[in-house]
Formats: sequence, structure tokens, C-alpha cells
Amino acid sequence: MNTYTNNSQMIIEELKNSLGKIDENQVMNLIEEMNKAEKIFFIGVGRVLTMLECMAKRLKHIGYDTYMVGQTTEPPITDKDLLIVGSGSGNTLIPKGIAFKAKEFNAKIAHIGAIEDNPLKEITDVFVRIPVKSKKNLPDQVNSNQPMTSLFEQSLLLLGDTITLMILDMKNEPINESMWSNHANLE
Amino acid sequence: MNTYTNNSQMIIEELKNSLGKIDENQVMNLIEEMNKAEKIFFIGVGRVLTMLECMAKRLKHIGYDTYMVGQTTEPPITDKDLLIVGSGSGNTLIPKGIAFKAKEFNAKIAHIGAIEDNPLKEITDVFVRIPVKSKKNLPDQVNSNQPMTSLFEQSLLLLGDTITLMILDMKNEPINESMWSNHANLE
Amino acid sequence: MNTYTNNSQMIIEELKNSLGKIDENQVMNLIEEMNKAEKIFFIGVGRVLTMLECMAKRLKHIGYDTYMVGQTTEPPITDKDLLIVGSGSGNTLIPKGIAFKAKEFNAKIAHIGAIEDNPLKEITDVFVRIPVKSKKNLPDQVNSNQPMTSLFEQSLLLLGDTITLMILDMKNEPINESMWSNHANLE
Amino acid sequence: MNTYTNNSQMIIEELKNSLGKIDENQVMNLIEEMNKAEKIFFIGVGRVLTMLECMAKRLKHIGYDTYMVGQTTEPPITDKDLLIVGSGSGNTLIPKGIAFKAKEFNAKIAHIGAIEDNPLKEITDVFVRIPVKSKKNLPDQVNSNQPMTSLFEQSLLLLGDTITLMILDMKNEPINESMWSNHANLE
Repeated sequence: MNTYTNNSQMIIEELKNSLGKIDENQVMNLIEEMNKAEKIFFIGVGRVLTMLECMAKRLKHIGYDTYMVGQTTEPPITDKDLLIVGSGSGNTLIPKGIAFKAKEFNAKIAHIGAIEDNPLKEITDVFVRIPVKSKKNLPDQVNSNQPMTSLFEQSLLLLGDTITLMILDMKNEPINESMWSNHANLE
Repeated sequence: MNTYTNNSQMIIEELKNSLGKIDENQVMNLIEEMNKAEKIFFIGVGRVLTMLECMAKRLKHIGYDTYMVGQTTEPPITDKDLLIVGSGSGNTLIPKGIAFKAKEFNAKIAHIGAIEDNPLKEITDVFVRIPVKSKKNLPDQVNSNQPMTSLFEQSLLLLGDTITLMILDMKNEPINESMWSNHANLE
Repeated sequence: MNTYTNNSQMIIEELKNSLGKIDENQVMNLIEEMNKAEKIFFIGVGRVLTMLECMAKRLKHIGYDTYMVGQTTEPPITDKDLLIVGSGSGNTLIPKGIAFKAKEFNAKIAHIGAIEDNPLKEITDVFVRIPVKSKKNLPDQVNSNQPMTSLFEQSLLLLGDTITLMILDMKNEPINESMWSNHANLE
Repeated sequence: MNTYTNNSQMIIEELKNSLGKIDENQVMNLIEEMNKAEKIFFIGVGRVLTMLECMAKRLKHIGYDTYMVGQTTEPPITDKDLLIVGSGSGNTLIPKGIAFKAKEFNAKIAHIGAIEDNPLKEITDVFVRIPVKSKKNLPDQVNSNQPMTSLFEQSLLLLGDTITLMILDMKNEPINESMWSNHANLE
């Protein structure tokens, strides 16, 4: 029995599928909104939140002005800013509440989720679908042998890191050169 | 028996003493360093850390550029910046490590502590003493009937809020007017 | 001009008033609910949240099983648990949403706020009023020269620490003896 | 040009390589230490920390007693506990400091890193190598076109999730059944 290899390669296969089915146009639209925004805010809960933290951190390294909703030194959001909401269902209490609040200030809303038809739809300016299994059991979803929403979370991390690479490609910027200059040095 | 009144008024009395014995010149020196800094970073652990978060948050509201060490979107520290260390003993592992690291980047170091003669002394640019009970059992310390280092932590919160009021006084600025414009609105 | 002394003693005076007007019976009721609960959860935002973190931390030291809502390793809430909500108005988005969610699981709800007549009232099992200035401008409120809701936050910290002392009194337990054995040692 | 597909599939390939080169025996040793521990603590910084948070969270769902070092309600570590350190170099200030501190309390130390010969080696009870590029430029390392230490971080997330699956396999437990009963419900 080689349980490590079986399980790790199964995860890789699932990720290959889920990332392979994300619509590139949706990703390009998200990058476009990110580039128009003055500040970018992120909201999610649980492991989805930690993935968004990774995204906020890396985007900061390449020059974006990013904030986690609820961080100690959080500025107000304005109509020039973008809120990126991570929520598979689009129906999670806190992200949903914060998204509707942000819309009151006329911020743009980007939603990364698993189901297009969701409660955030009416206020979402750009939607990126990670087409993994969800409660709605949609016909085109990528199934998973992993517990809970692990595949969504893993895909979200890799999507964020793919977006970073795409932006570096677009800027035609050598990787690493400038990034460390924006990296925390107290650690 | 009126245990609520006894205990709450005892805390008030202790705070009156500890705040009353802080050296105003030390506080003025700290404010001077804060005003010279481009960015202000904060480090502490436990309840001391939460008090510094309160200070970072309020200073942000009145226009300072503040950061918690370790926050998701933390920039690098430079020789134009100030690190405020909260540590009663000056000997806490993480704050001490981070302070020496910050000094390598030639940042200014402010230390708010209970004991002047401490391991951070050699790199400290400005020291503010909250003269409460400590392991060294100094003759001029304010004693406390509270557990652990509660009196230090409470005093630290009120010192931070006093500093905010002093700065507003110096700026001759009406309280509240501009502050809400810097306050997070997604909550 | 002695701006440090003026401002620090003004804060002390305000705290003396606000703590002096808290109803001891309400505090006793809160302690009673705390003692009946298996687990105690805390929710708030901003500086109110940091004060609740201080309370959760100290209560843990004296043997209560405490959790911040949203912490990495948060267990589910049940009908044997208590949620302590910190919110001056009782109308803050996230605390309100979480409180109603907790009620669905039949958890007990304690609310520490500034206004008794508030949106949480219908689900609140025990209410403790910190009678400081609020938007409703109630006749019996303690006024404040401090910005924003500083006086509420400071009072909340000291209320939490008073409650710790009251519990130690009730247990007739020597302060400090057992507390350090529950304190984090990796810092 | 299809920059999304190129970049996302490149990440997948890199992960396939890095996970494929982790030594299963090292992983089994880690699981063994996890199973012997009463409590499991986690320490890291930056994006490595967020990955460990994901691991702590999921392990909690399957019944392990997990804690982040520095969390509000952190218990003391003892000689019956395990500290899992995430640090590519094994030389990061805070994780290194905390690991040596934990060893003073005779806790077991597990280190997940990129370089076997590192400053933590003398106190490490179990080491798992994610063999990705590092400053030492080792001959057998998996190279990466991604910035900074992204490949280490991504691999760490997937290693943590692989470990969860391995444990579920060993327990012969149906996925998902019991896990939600340990999942936070206030979100």
C-alpha cells in the first residue's frame, strides 16, 4: 500500500481538472477589475479566508494595495475600490453581509465561487467560477474524493497564484526582482 | 458584599496611580518619534499585543500609517520607520527578536515597558516606562492586586488613548470630525 | 501646559463614572450564565473585538473554555454554550448576524452594549449595559470627551477584568497560583 | 496566447514533481508523532503560516486537538505535545525561536522544510522534506518558475491535505460523516 502517493496524486489530478475548467475570460475580467481598482479588499471565512490572505499578500508584493476586511488597520472602502469575495455558495453569512455593505459604498464586487446562480449575483460585477462539487450538484462540476470543500480551497490558492503569474507576464517583469522589496522583512 | 463595585473601583485606583507616575517627558519623546516616522510598526504578544492593536487602529484614524508586525499585508520596515515594542520586561522572545531585526534595518525603536534596565535598552531610541509591578520588584513601582500583568496591559491601552488625545490637542483638531473618514466601513 | 496629565486623568474620571453606573445585578447574571456554559464564544468587531479577546484569554487562564468566533480551530456552538456579543448599538453587521446564527443552535446569548433597546434584544438571554454615550443620546448616559467609542471599549476591558476578579473572589482562590499553569508558554 | 492555461498547468506540473519527491517514510513518521501527541501546535510565518492554519483546521475536524501558537486562547505546551514548524530554511526568526522554546518544555518537534541540514536539526524529532528550490541550491531539488517560495507553500497545503486523507484511510472512516460535527457553525 502506498497511501501517500495515491492520495497526493489524486489531489493533483483533481486540481488539474478543476483549474482546467475555469473560464479564462472570467479570469481576465477579474484582472481587469483589479487593475482599475485603487484598493483591493478580500473577504471569506475559514480555509477560504486563508487562501485569500495568500492572494492579498502576493498581490501586495507585485504592487497592488490590498487589505483583508477586519484587519487592524483597515481603511474605508470607496467607489474606486474592489472587494473580492471568496465563497463557494455565495451564501455564507459574513462574506454575503460584507459584500452587500460594500455595494452600499458603490465598491465593485468580484465573486469567486462554485455556483453562478447565487445570492450575490445581483451585486456581482465580475464572477469567476471554480467549477467544483457543490450542494447544487451541477452537471458540469468536477467531482472530488476530498472531504468538505478542500478542492475549492486548493483551487482558489492556485488560481490566485496563477493570476500573479499572468500579471507578471503582462507587465513583462522579471520575477522576484522587485517583489522582495515589497515583502515584510520583520520575520 | 458588593464585589462588583469593590473590584472595579480598585482597578480604577490602580490605573490612576500607574498613569499618574508615567513621565510626561518620555511620552512627549515618543510622540516626537511617531511624528518623524513614515510608517509605524507594532509588536507585542498576548494581551499586550491586543492593546497595541487598539493603539495602531486609533492612530490610523488620525492619519498615521500604522502596521502590526505579521499582518497579512505588511510592508518592509526601513530607516525612516518606527517600531513600537510593548513588553513589560523587554525580554519577551518574539518582541525582542523582532526589535533586534528591525534595528538591522536601522529603524527607530520605541519601547513601552515596566523596567528601564532591560535587554532592549541598547537598541532603544525612546523608552516609556509604565511603572507597575514587575519581576525585578523595583522600589518605585505601583503595586497591584490584579493577576498577572493586567495593570500593565490596562495602562498601555489608556496610555495609547491618552497619546491620541494629546495629538488631537496639539493639532488643535476637533475630535471625531475627520476620524470617521479613516475608519473601516465594512463592519 | 500638562497635556499628558490632563488627558490621562480625564480618561480615568470617565471610566470611574461609566464603571460606577453599571448595574451589578446584570454583571452577576452574566457570571451565572458563564458558569452554566460548557463553552463560551466571543464576537465583536474592531477595538471591541480586541477587548473581548482580552476577556477570553483571561477567562481561559482561570479555567473557562473560551473561543473567538472565527479562530482557526473553532468548534461548533451548541445549546449548552454561551455567546458573548460586544456591540454598543447591538446593530453591528457581523456580531448581529453571528448572534442570530448562534440562536438557531439554541446557544445562550449574552450582550454587552450601551443601549438596552436594540435589535439583539429579542434573542438576548442576559444583557449588561455599559451606559456610555450612544447615538440614541439617552438621558442617563455617561458623556465622554474621547473620540468615537473609546469609552465603551475601555470600560469593556475593565469590566472583563473586574469579572475575573469577582470570579476569583467567589472561588476564594489565591490569585496567580493556578493561572500561569493555563497560560501560553510559547512566547 | 493563453496565459491562464499555461501558468495554471505549469503550477500543477511543479506540484506533481514536488509532491512526488516527498519521502513517504518521513510522512508516516510525522503521522505517528501526531497520533502520539496530546495536543498539536503549529508555527510559521507569512504564507507558510496560512497553510499551517489550513492543516490545523482540518486536523481539528478529524479529531486532533490543534492550536496555532499565538492564538487568543492558547494553552501551555508540555512534554506530551507536538510542535509542527513550517519553515523552508529552518532559519526563520520566530519559528526557530518558538521551536527552541518548545524544546525547553520537552515537546516533540516536527519540522517541515526544504533543507535537511538546517539550524533546527539538533532539536527536530521528525523532519519532512519538501524538496523544492532553496537558497542552498541542492542538486536534487525541484526547480520552479514561480516567484519567491510559492511552490513550498502550495506543496505544504497539499501535503497537509494528503495527510488528512491518509489518516482517514487508516481509520477506515467514511469521509465527511463525522467531520462536519467538529466544524465551526458560526459563519
